[in-house]
Amino acid sequence: MTHTPHPGHLAIVGLGPGMRDLMAPRAIQVIQESDLVIGYRVYLEQISDLLTDKEIHVSELTHEVERATLAVQSAHAGRRVCIVSSGDAGIYGMAGLVLDLFSHSSDTDTITEPSVEVVPGISALNAAAALLGAPLMHDFAAISLSDLLTPWATIAKRLAAVAEADFVVVLYNPSSRKRQWQLGEAQRLLLVHRAETTPVGLVRNAYREGQKVQLTTLSHLLEHDVDMFTTVVIGNSCTRIQQARMITPRGYESRA
Amino acid sequence: MTHTPHPGHLAIVGLGPGMRDLMAPRAIQVIQESDLVIGYRVYLEQISDLLTDKEIHVSELTHEVERATLAVQSAHAGRRVCIVSSGDAGIYGMAGLVLDLFSHSSDTDTITEPSVEVVPGISALNAAAALLGAPLMHDFAAISLSDLLTPWATIAKRLAAVAEADFVVVLYNPSSRKRQWQLGEAQRLLLVHRAETTPVGLVRNAYREGQKVQLTTLSHLLEHDVDMFTTVVIGNSCTRIQQARMITPRGYESRA
Repeated sequence: MTHTPHPGHLAIVGLGPGMRDLMAPRAIQVIQESDLVIGYRVYLEQISDLLTDKEIHVSELTHEVERATLAVQSAHAGRRVCIVSSGDAGIYGMAGLVLDLFSHSSDTDTITEPSVEVVPGISALNAAAALLGAPLMHDFAAISLSDLLTPWATIAKRLAAVAEADFVVVLYNPSSRKRQWQLGEAQRLLLVHRAETTPVGLVRNAYREGQKVQLTTLSHLLEHDVDMFTTVVIGNSCTRIQQARMITPRGYESRA
Repeated sequence: MTHTPHPGHLAIVGLGPGMRDLMAPRAIQVIQESDLVIGYRVYLEQISDLLTDKEIHVSELTHEVERATLAVQSAHAGRRVCIVSSGDAGIYGMAGLVLDLFSHSSDTDTITEPSVEVVPGISALNAAAALLGAPLMHDFAAISLSDLLTPWATIAKRLAAVAEADFVVVLYNPSSRKRQWQLGEAQRLLLVHRAETTPVGLVRNAYREGQKVQLTTLSHLLEHDVDMFTTVVIGNSCTRIQQARMITPRGYESRA
Protein backbone atom coordinates (compact mmCIF):
# COMPACT_ATOMS: atom_id res chain seq x y z
CA MET A 1 0.00 0.00 0.00
CA THR A 2 1.42 3.36 -0.96
CA HIS A 3 1.02 6.52 1.05
CA THR A 4 1.08 9.91 -0.58
CA PRO A 5 3.28 12.24 1.48
CA HIS A 6 0.56 14.88 1.93
CA PRO A 7 -3.19 14.33 2.06
CA GLY A 8 -5.35 15.88 -0.61
CA HIS A 9 -7.80 18.72 -0.18
CA LEU A 10 -11.30 18.76 -1.58
CA ALA A 11 -12.98 22.18 -1.81
CA ILE A 12 -16.53 22.77 -3.01
CA VAL A 13 -16.79 26.43 -3.89
CA GLY A 14 -19.69 28.72 -4.76
CA LEU A 15 -18.65 31.51 -7.13
CA GLY A 16 -21.58 33.80 -6.32
CA PRO A 17 -23.76 35.31 -9.02
CA GLY A 18 -20.94 36.07 -11.45
CA MET A 19 -19.49 39.52 -10.81
CA ARG A 20 -16.09 39.15 -9.23
CA ASP A 21 -16.83 41.71 -6.54
CA LEU A 22 -19.58 39.47 -5.13
CA MET A 23 -17.31 36.43 -4.89
CA ALA A 24 -15.95 35.70 -1.41
CA PRO A 25 -12.20 36.27 -1.04
CA ARG A 26 -12.02 32.79 0.49
CA ALA A 27 -13.35 31.32 -2.77
CA ILE A 28 -10.62 33.08 -4.75
CA GLN A 29 -7.95 31.92 -2.30
CA VAL A 30 -9.09 28.29 -2.45
CA ILE A 31 -9.09 28.32 -6.25
CA GLN A 32 -5.59 29.82 -6.27
CA GLU A 33 -4.30 27.15 -3.90
CA SER A 34 -5.76 24.29 -5.95
CA ASP A 35 -3.91 22.36 -8.59
CA LEU A 36 -7.02 20.91 -10.25
CA VAL A 37 -10.17 22.96 -10.84
CA ILE A 38 -13.33 21.24 -12.05
CA GLY A 39 -16.49 22.86 -13.33
CA TYR A 40 -19.03 23.55 -15.99
CA ARG A 41 -17.62 25.49 -18.92
CA VAL A 42 -19.43 28.79 -18.26
CA TYR A 43 -18.34 28.91 -14.62
CA LEU A 44 -14.70 28.26 -15.48
CA GLU A 45 -14.80 31.03 -18.08
CA GLN A 46 -15.91 33.43 -15.33
CA ILE A 47 -12.71 32.73 -13.40
CA SER A 48 -10.31 32.09 -16.27
CA ASP A 49 -7.83 34.67 -14.97
CA LEU A 50 -7.40 32.56 -11.81
CA LEU A 51 -6.68 29.36 -13.74
CA THR A 52 -3.54 30.14 -15.74
CA ASP A 53 -1.25 27.67 -13.92
CA LYS A 54 -3.91 25.06 -13.09
CA GLU A 55 -5.02 21.82 -14.57
CA ILE A 56 -8.67 22.31 -15.40
CA HIS A 57 -11.42 19.86 -16.16
CA VAL A 58 -14.27 21.34 -18.15
CA SER A 59 -17.52 19.45 -18.35
CA GLU A 60 -21.02 19.93 -19.63
CA LEU A 61 -23.88 21.07 -17.41
CA THR A 62 -25.57 17.72 -16.98
CA HIS A 63 -22.45 15.71 -16.15
CA GLU A 64 -22.57 16.34 -12.41
CA VAL A 65 -21.76 12.78 -11.36
CA GLU A 66 -18.72 12.70 -13.63
CA ARG A 67 -17.46 16.00 -12.18
CA ALA A 68 -18.07 14.92 -8.59
CA THR A 69 -16.42 11.53 -9.07
CA LEU A 70 -13.31 13.07 -10.60
CA ALA A 71 -13.09 15.56 -7.74
CA VAL A 72 -13.33 12.88 -5.07
CA GLN A 73 -10.89 10.50 -6.77
CA SER A 74 -8.34 13.25 -7.34
CA ALA A 75 -8.51 14.38 -3.72
CA HIS A 76 -7.94 10.80 -2.58
CA ALA A 77 -4.90 10.70 -4.86
CA GLY A 78 -3.43 13.53 -2.81
CA ARG A 79 -4.26 16.47 -5.04
CA ARG A 80 -5.66 19.85 -4.05
CA VAL A 81 -8.98 19.86 -5.89
CA CYS A 82 -11.59 22.58 -6.23
CA ILE A 83 -15.01 21.94 -7.75
CA VAL A 84 -16.91 25.12 -8.54
CA SER A 85 -20.63 25.96 -8.79
CA SER A 86 -22.31 29.25 -9.53
CA GLY A 87 -24.12 30.92 -6.65
CA ASP A 88 -23.84 28.92 -3.45
CA ALA A 89 -22.69 25.31 -3.92
CA GLY A 90 -24.72 24.52 -0.80
CA ILE A 91 -28.10 25.60 -2.20
CA TYR A 92 -29.34 23.26 -4.94
CA GLY A 93 -25.64 23.00 -5.84
CA MET A 94 -22.87 20.42 -6.13
CA ALA A 95 -22.04 20.10 -2.42
CA GLY A 96 -24.43 17.23 -1.69
CA LEU A 97 -23.37 15.01 -4.55
CA VAL A 98 -19.66 15.54 -3.86
CA LEU A 99 -19.94 14.93 -0.11
CA ASP A 100 -22.12 11.87 -0.69
CA LEU A 101 -19.58 10.32 -3.07
CA PHE A 102 -16.76 11.31 -0.74
CA SER A 103 -18.34 9.61 2.26
CA HIS A 104 -18.72 6.38 0.32
CA SER A 105 -15.19 6.54 -1.04
CA SER A 106 -13.38 6.94 2.25
CA ASP A 107 -11.29 4.08 3.52
CA THR A 108 -9.80 3.47 6.94
CA ASP A 109 -6.42 4.84 5.92
CA THR A 110 -6.93 8.05 7.85
CA ILE A 111 -3.38 9.26 7.24
CA THR A 112 -4.16 10.16 3.67
CA GLU A 113 -7.80 11.14 4.16
CA PRO A 114 -8.26 14.44 2.30
CA SER A 115 -9.53 17.49 4.14
CA VAL A 116 -12.86 18.82 2.92
CA GLU A 117 -14.19 22.37 2.82
CA VAL A 118 -17.42 23.90 1.53
CA VAL A 119 -17.02 27.63 0.79
CA PRO A 120 -20.41 29.37 0.92
CA GLY A 121 -21.39 31.93 -1.67
CA ILE A 122 -24.05 34.49 -2.49
CA SER A 123 -26.83 32.39 -3.99
CA ALA A 124 -29.53 33.30 -6.48
CA LEU A 125 -31.98 34.09 -3.70
CA ASN A 126 -29.63 36.54 -2.00
CA ALA A 127 -28.80 38.20 -5.33
CA ALA A 128 -32.38 38.40 -6.58
CA ALA A 129 -33.57 39.84 -3.27
CA ALA A 130 -30.94 42.59 -3.32
CA LEU A 131 -31.85 43.61 -6.87
CA LEU A 132 -35.59 43.61 -6.18
CA GLY A 133 -35.45 45.62 -2.94
CA ALA A 134 -36.25 43.71 0.24
CA PRO A 135 -38.67 40.85 -0.44
CA LEU A 136 -37.12 38.40 2.06
CA MET A 137 -37.69 40.32 5.28
CA HIS A 138 -40.06 37.64 6.51
CA ASP A 139 -40.33 33.85 6.34
CA PHE A 140 -39.74 32.41 2.90
CA ALA A 141 -39.54 29.09 1.09
CA ALA A 142 -37.25 28.07 -1.77
CA ILE A 143 -38.79 25.60 -4.21
CA SER A 144 -37.30 24.18 -7.38
CA LEU A 145 -39.85 23.58 -10.14
CA SER A 146 -37.63 20.96 -11.77
CA ASP A 147 -39.40 17.60 -11.68
CA LEU A 148 -36.49 15.65 -13.13
CA LEU A 149 -35.57 14.11 -9.76
CA THR A 150 -38.64 15.01 -7.70
CA PRO A 151 -42.21 13.88 -8.44
CA TRP A 152 -44.43 16.77 -9.44
CA ALA A 153 -46.93 15.73 -6.77
CA THR A 154 -44.32 16.53 -4.10
CA ILE A 155 -43.60 19.93 -5.63
CA ALA A 156 -47.31 20.72 -5.98
CA LYS A 157 -47.95 19.81 -2.36
CA ARG A 158 -45.19 22.17 -1.29
CA LEU A 159 -46.48 25.05 -3.39
CA ALA A 160 -49.94 24.63 -1.89
CA ALA A 161 -48.56 24.42 1.64
CA VAL A 162 -46.46 27.58 1.46
CA ALA A 163 -49.17 29.47 -0.41
CA GLU A 164 -51.66 28.81 2.37
CA ALA A 165 -49.16 29.56 5.15
CA ASP A 166 -48.28 32.93 3.54
CA PHE A 167 -44.58 32.40 2.91
CA VAL A 168 -42.69 34.54 0.44
CA VAL A 169 -41.74 32.01 -2.27
CA VAL A 170 -38.51 31.85 -4.26
CA LEU A 171 -38.72 29.63 -7.33
CA TYR A 172 -35.52 28.03 -8.63
CA ASN A 173 -35.48 26.39 -12.09
CA PRO A 174 -38.86 27.93 -12.93
CA SER A 175 -38.85 27.01 -16.60
CA SER A 176 -36.66 25.65 -19.38
CA ARG A 177 -37.09 24.74 -23.01
CA LYS A 178 -38.19 21.23 -22.02
CA ARG A 179 -40.20 22.17 -18.94
CA GLN A 180 -42.85 24.73 -19.76
CA TRP A 181 -46.10 23.93 -17.96
CA GLN A 182 -44.77 23.83 -14.40
CA LEU A 183 -44.70 27.60 -13.91
CA GLY A 184 -48.34 27.95 -14.93
CA GLU A 185 -49.30 25.18 -12.55
CA ALA A 186 -47.33 26.87 -9.75
CA GLN A 187 -49.16 30.12 -10.48
CA ARG A 188 -52.51 28.31 -10.32
CA LEU A 189 -51.67 26.70 -6.95
CA LEU A 190 -50.46 29.99 -5.47
CA LEU A 191 -53.56 31.87 -6.66
CA VAL A 192 -55.76 29.56 -4.58
CA HIS A 193 -54.51 31.37 -1.47
CA ARG A 194 -52.90 34.55 -2.73
CA ALA A 195 -54.35 37.65 -4.42
CA GLU A 196 -53.98 38.25 -8.16
CA THR A 197 -52.26 41.53 -7.30
CA THR A 198 -49.53 39.82 -5.24
CA PRO A 199 -46.19 41.38 -6.27
CA VAL A 200 -43.81 39.12 -8.18
CA GLY A 201 -40.18 39.90 -8.98
CA LEU A 202 -38.31 38.32 -11.88
CA VAL A 203 -34.53 38.51 -11.93
CA ARG A 204 -32.67 37.13 -14.92
CA ASN A 205 -28.87 36.89 -14.94
CA ALA A 206 -28.47 38.65 -11.59
CA TYR A 207 -25.21 40.62 -11.44
CA ARG A 208 -24.16 39.25 -14.86
CA GLU A 209 -24.18 40.46 -18.42
CA GLY A 210 -27.76 40.73 -19.61
CA GLN A 211 -29.18 41.36 -16.13
CA LYS A 212 -32.92 42.04 -16.23
CA VAL A 213 -35.09 42.92 -13.22
CA GLN A 214 -38.84 43.05 -13.66
CA LEU A 215 -41.78 43.56 -11.35
CA THR A 216 -45.18 42.12 -12.14
CA THR A 217 -48.10 40.53 -10.33
CA LEU A 218 -49.06 36.92 -9.78
CA SER A 219 -51.85 37.11 -12.33
CA HIS A 220 -49.53 38.52 -15.02
CA LEU A 221 -46.59 36.20 -14.32
CA LEU A 222 -46.96 34.10 -17.46
CA GLU A 223 -46.82 37.14 -19.74
CA HIS A 224 -43.10 37.50 -19.05
CA ASP A 225 -40.11 35.55 -20.33
CA VAL A 226 -38.98 33.18 -17.60
CA ASP A 227 -36.18 30.71 -18.25
CA MET A 228 -33.58 28.68 -16.38
CA PHE A 229 -31.52 31.81 -15.72
CA THR A 230 -34.44 33.51 -13.97
CA THR A 231 -35.24 33.55 -10.27
CA VAL A 232 -38.89 34.22 -9.43
CA VAL A 233 -39.82 35.82 -6.09
CA ILE A 234 -43.49 35.85 -5.09
CA GLY A 235 -44.53 38.13 -2.26
CA ASN A 236 -46.55 37.22 0.81
CA SER A 237 -49.91 38.88 1.60
CA CYS A 238 -48.15 41.99 2.97
CA THR A 239 -45.51 42.47 0.26
CA ARG A 240 -45.90 45.72 -1.68
CA ILE A 241 -44.23 47.67 -4.44
CA GLN A 242 -42.92 51.06 -3.36
CA GLN A 243 -41.06 53.19 -5.85
CA ALA A 244 -40.34 50.20 -8.05
CA ARG A 245 -38.98 48.15 -5.16
CA MET A 246 -40.46 44.99 -3.73
CA ILE A 247 -40.68 45.23 0.06
CA THR A 248 -42.01 42.68 2.53
CA PRO A 249 -42.65 44.14 6.00
CA ARG A 250 -40.75 42.45 8.80
CA GLY A 251 -43.86 41.77 10.85
CA TYR A 252 -47.60 41.44 10.78
CA GLU A 253 -48.62 43.58 13.71
CA SER A 254 -47.23 46.65 11.96
CA ARG A 255 -49.74 46.09 9.16
CA ALA A 256 -52.36 48.34 10.77
CA MET B 1 -34.85 75.82 -1.97
CA THR B 2 -31.23 74.74 -1.85
CA HIS B 3 -29.74 72.04 -4.01
CA THR B 4 -26.77 70.05 -2.88
CA PRO B 5 -24.29 69.85 -5.72
CA HIS B 6 -24.17 66.05 -5.77
CA PRO B 7 -26.93 63.64 -4.78
CA GLY B 8 -26.40 61.34 -1.85
CA HIS B 9 -25.92 57.60 -1.94
CA LEU B 10 -27.65 55.15 0.36
CA ALA B 11 -26.10 51.69 0.61
CA ILE B 12 -27.49 48.82 2.66
CA VAL B 13 -24.71 46.33 3.12
CA GLY B 14 -24.56 42.78 4.45
CA LEU B 15 -21.21 42.00 6.09
CA GLY B 16 -21.55 38.22 5.83
CA PRO B 17 -21.01 35.93 8.82
CA GLY B 18 -18.06 37.83 10.26
CA MET B 19 -14.79 36.54 8.81
CA ARG B 20 -13.40 39.10 6.42
CA ASP B 21 -12.71 36.52 3.74
CA LEU B 22 -16.44 35.78 3.42
CA MET B 23 -17.36 39.45 2.95
CA ALA B 24 -18.01 40.50 -0.63
CA PRO B 25 -15.38 42.85 -2.10
CA ARG B 26 -18.28 45.10 -3.17
CA ALA B 27 -19.28 45.50 0.48
CA ILE B 28 -15.77 46.62 1.40
CA GLN B 29 -15.65 49.04 -1.53
CA VAL B 30 -19.00 50.61 -0.62
CA ILE B 31 -17.92 51.06 2.99
CA GLN B 32 -14.67 52.67 1.87
CA GLU B 33 -16.50 55.09 -0.42
CA SER B 34 -18.95 56.16 2.29
CA ASP B 35 -18.52 59.15 4.55
CA LEU B 36 -21.04 58.01 7.16
CA VAL B 37 -21.29 54.39 8.35
CA ILE B 38 -24.18 53.35 10.59
CA GLY B 39 -24.57 50.10 12.48
CA TYR B 40 -24.88 48.12 15.63
CA ARG B 41 -21.77 48.24 17.78
CA VAL B 42 -20.63 44.65 17.25
CA TYR B 43 -20.87 44.91 13.45
CA LEU B 44 -18.88 48.14 13.35
CA GLU B 45 -16.18 46.56 15.51
CA GLN B 46 -15.84 43.80 12.90
CA ILE B 47 -14.92 46.39 10.26
CA SER B 48 -13.13 48.96 12.42
CA ASP B 49 -10.05 48.92 10.17
CA LEU B 50 -12.22 50.24 7.31
CA LEU B 51 -13.61 53.13 9.35
CA THR B 52 -10.56 55.17 10.28
CA ASP B 53 -11.48 58.27 8.24
CA LYS B 54 -15.27 57.93 8.51
CA GLU B 55 -17.95 59.44 10.60
CA ILE B 56 -19.59 56.52 12.34
CA HIS B 57 -22.89 56.20 14.14
CA VAL B 58 -22.99 53.37 16.65
CA SER B 59 -26.34 52.25 17.97
CA GLU B 60 -27.79 49.49 20.08
CA LEU B 61 -29.30 46.35 18.63
CA THR B 62 -32.95 47.25 19.12
CA HIS B 63 -32.74 50.79 17.71
CA GLU B 64 -33.38 49.78 14.10
CA VAL B 65 -35.82 52.61 13.33
CA GLU B 66 -33.38 55.22 14.64
CA ARG B 67 -30.56 53.78 12.50
CA ALA B 68 -32.71 53.58 9.38
CA THR B 69 -34.08 57.11 9.82
CA LEU B 70 -30.61 58.57 10.23
CA ALA B 71 -29.42 56.73 7.12
CA VAL B 72 -32.30 57.99 4.99
CA GLN B 73 -32.08 61.59 6.23
CA SER B 74 -28.32 61.72 5.73
CA ALA B 75 -28.58 60.39 2.17
CA HIS B 76 -31.19 63.04 1.39
CA ALA B 77 -28.78 65.62 2.74
CA GLY B 78 -26.33 64.59 0.02
CA ARG B 79 -24.07 62.31 2.00
CA ARG B 80 -22.70 58.92 1.02
CA VAL B 81 -24.22 56.70 3.68
CA CYS B 82 -23.72 53.02 4.40
CA ILE B 83 -25.86 51.10 6.87
CA VAL B 84 -24.45 47.69 7.75
CA SER B 85 -26.05 44.44 8.91
CA SER B 86 -24.47 41.10 9.66
CA GLY B 87 -25.14 38.28 7.20
CA ASP B 88 -27.33 39.42 4.33
CA ALA B 89 -29.16 42.71 4.92
CA GLY B 90 -31.84 41.34 2.59
CA ILE B 91 -32.73 38.29 4.73
CA TYR B 92 -34.47 39.27 7.96
CA GLY B 93 -32.16 42.30 7.87
CA MET B 94 -32.28 46.09 7.68
CA ALA B 95 -33.03 46.44 3.95
CA GLY B 96 -36.82 46.48 4.26
CA LEU B 97 -37.02 49.09 6.98
CA VAL B 98 -34.54 51.40 5.25
CA LEU B 99 -36.20 51.11 1.83
CA ASP B 100 -39.64 51.61 3.36
CA LEU B 101 -38.58 54.80 5.12
CA PHE B 102 -36.76 55.94 2.01
CA SER B 103 -39.81 55.52 -0.22
CA HIS B 104 -41.89 57.63 2.15
CA SER B 105 -39.23 60.30 2.48
CA SER B 106 -38.72 60.99 -1.19
CA ASP B 107 -39.89 64.26 -2.60
CA THR B 108 -40.35 65.34 -6.20
CA ASP B 109 -36.99 67.05 -6.33
CA THR B 110 -35.46 64.34 -8.48
CA ILE B 111 -32.22 66.24 -9.00
CA THR B 112 -31.09 65.49 -5.49
CA GLU B 113 -32.72 62.07 -5.10
CA PRO B 114 -30.05 59.78 -3.63
CA SER B 115 -29.09 56.60 -5.42
CA VAL B 116 -29.80 53.40 -3.50
CA GLU B 117 -27.97 50.09 -3.48
CA VAL B 118 -28.44 46.85 -1.56
CA VAL B 119 -25.25 44.77 -1.43
CA PRO B 120 -26.09 41.09 -0.83
CA GLY B 121 -24.07 39.00 1.59
CA ILE B 122 -23.59 35.45 2.77
CA SER B 123 -26.44 34.97 5.23
CA ALA B 124 -26.74 32.69 8.24
CA LEU B 125 -28.43 30.00 6.16
CA ASN B 126 -25.64 29.91 3.58
CA ALA B 127 -22.99 29.85 6.32
CA ALA B 128 -24.68 27.21 8.46
CA ALA B 129 -25.27 24.97 5.46
CA ALA B 130 -21.61 25.10 4.43
CA LEU B 131 -20.43 24.20 7.93
CA LEU B 132 -22.93 21.34 8.31
CA GLY B 133 -22.24 19.73 4.92
CA ALA B 134 -25.02 20.00 2.35
CA PRO B 135 -28.43 20.17 4.04
CA LEU B 136 -29.98 22.62 1.53
CA MET B 137 -29.79 20.52 -1.62
CA HIS B 138 -33.57 20.38 -1.80
CA ASP B 139 -36.49 22.71 -1.09
CA PHE B 140 -36.25 24.54 2.21
CA ALA B 141 -38.07 27.11 4.30
CA ALA B 142 -36.64 29.83 6.52
CA ILE B 143 -38.74 30.63 9.58
CA SER B 144 -38.01 33.07 12.37
CA LEU B 145 -39.26 31.93 15.78
CA SER B 146 -39.38 35.51 17.05
CA ASP B 147 -42.98 36.40 17.88
CA LEU B 148 -42.23 40.04 18.70
CA LEU B 149 -43.74 41.32 15.43
CA THR B 150 -45.52 38.19 14.20
CA PRO B 151 -48.34 36.39 16.02
CA TRP B 152 -47.29 32.95 17.23
CA ALA B 153 -50.33 31.45 15.50
CA THR B 154 -48.87 32.52 12.13
CA ILE B 155 -45.50 30.99 12.97
CA ALA B 156 -47.10 27.77 14.23
CA LYS B 157 -49.15 27.44 11.06
CA ARG B 158 -46.00 27.80 8.98
CA LEU B 159 -44.11 25.20 10.98
CA ALA B 160 -46.96 22.73 10.56
CA ALA B 161 -47.22 23.45 6.83
CA VAL B 162 -43.55 22.92 6.03
CA ALA B 163 -43.30 19.91 8.33
CA GLU B 164 -46.09 18.16 6.44
CA ALA B 165 -44.75 19.18 3.01
CA ASP B 166 -41.28 17.79 3.89
CA PHE B 167 -39.23 20.97 3.53
CA VAL B 168 -35.80 21.25 5.09
CA VAL B 169 -36.35 23.97 7.73
CA VAL B 170 -33.93 26.71 8.76
CA LEU B 171 -34.86 28.42 12.03
CA TYR B 172 -33.72 32.00 12.59
CA ASN B 173 -33.96 33.55 16.07
CA PRO B 174 -34.66 30.14 17.61
CA SER B 175 -34.34 31.20 21.23
CA SER B 176 -33.22 34.06 23.43
CA ARG B 177 -33.16 34.82 27.14
CA LYS B 178 -36.70 36.19 26.94
CA ARG B 179 -38.08 33.68 24.42
CA GLN B 180 -37.60 30.14 25.63
CA TRP B 181 -40.69 28.03 24.89
CA GLN B 182 -40.92 28.65 21.14
CA LEU B 183 -38.22 26.15 20.17
CA GLY B 184 -39.92 23.34 22.11
CA GLU B 185 -43.21 24.18 20.45
CA ALA B 186 -41.53 24.16 17.04
CA GLN B 187 -40.05 20.74 17.83
CA ARG B 188 -43.49 19.44 18.82
CA LEU B 189 -45.09 20.72 15.59
CA LEU B 190 -42.32 19.25 13.44
CA LEU B 191 -42.49 15.86 15.18
CA VAL B 192 -46.13 15.50 14.10
CA HIS B 193 -44.89 14.84 10.57
CA ARG B 194 -41.21 14.09 10.92
CA ALA B 195 -39.33 11.17 12.53
CA GLU B 196 -37.63 11.53 15.92
CA THR B 197 -34.39 10.52 14.22
CA THR B 198 -34.54 13.42 11.71
CA PRO B 199 -31.06 14.97 11.58
CA VAL B 200 -30.73 18.47 13.02
CA GLY B 201 -27.72 20.75 12.69
CA LEU B 202 -26.93 23.54 15.16
CA VAL B 203 -24.46 26.22 14.13
CA ARG B 204 -23.50 28.87 16.65
CA ASN B 205 -21.34 31.86 15.65
CA ALA B 206 -20.72 30.57 12.13
CA TYR B 207 -17.30 31.68 10.85
CA ARG B 208 -16.73 33.76 13.98
CA GLU B 209 -14.88 33.40 17.22
CA GLY B 210 -16.53 30.71 19.30
CA GLN B 211 -17.90 28.82 16.30
CA LYS B 212 -19.67 25.62 17.34
CA VAL B 213 -21.17 23.06 14.95
CA GLN B 214 -23.27 20.24 16.38
CA LEU B 215 -25.33 17.44 14.94
CA THR B 216 -28.26 15.97 16.80
CA THR B 217 -31.75 14.64 16.08
CA LEU B 218 -35.15 16.25 16.27
CA SER B 219 -36.04 14.36 19.45
CA HIS B 220 -32.83 15.49 21.19
CA LEU B 221 -32.92 19.12 20.01
CA LEU B 222 -33.83 20.63 23.38
CA GLU B 223 -30.88 19.00 25.14
CA HIS B 224 -28.52 21.43 23.40
CA ASP B 225 -27.76 25.08 24.05
CA VAL B 226 -29.57 27.15 21.44
CA ASP B 227 -29.50 30.95 21.60
CA MET B 228 -29.93 33.98 19.35
CA PHE B 229 -26.51 33.35 17.76
CA THR B 230 -27.54 29.85 16.70
CA THR B 231 -29.02 28.76 13.37
CA VAL B 232 -30.99 25.52 13.49
CA VAL B 233 -31.29 23.36 10.35
CA ILE B 234 -33.81 20.49 10.43
CA GLY B 235 -33.55 17.87 7.71
CA ASN B 236 -36.31 16.58 5.46
CA SER B 237 -37.34 12.90 5.43
CA CYS B 238 -34.34 11.98 3.25
CA THR B 239 -31.61 13.96 5.04
CA ARG B 240 -28.93 11.75 6.56
CA ILE B 241 -25.71 12.04 8.50
CA GLN B 242 -22.69 10.63 6.68
CA GLN B 243 -19.27 10.90 8.28
CA ALA B 244 -20.44 13.70 10.56
CA ARG B 245 -21.91 15.71 7.68
CA MET B 246 -25.57 16.52 7.13
CA ILE B 247 -26.56 15.72 3.54
CA THR B 248 -29.95 16.12 1.87
CA PRO B 249 -30.21 14.23 -1.44
CA ARG B 250 -31.07 16.41 -4.42
CA GLY B 251 -34.04 14.29 -5.44
CA TYR B 252 -36.57 11.75 -4.30
CA GLU B 253 -36.47 9.23 -7.10
CA SER B 254 -32.85 8.42 -6.29
CA ARG B 255 -33.97 7.27 -2.84
CA ALA B 256 -34.42 3.64 -3.96
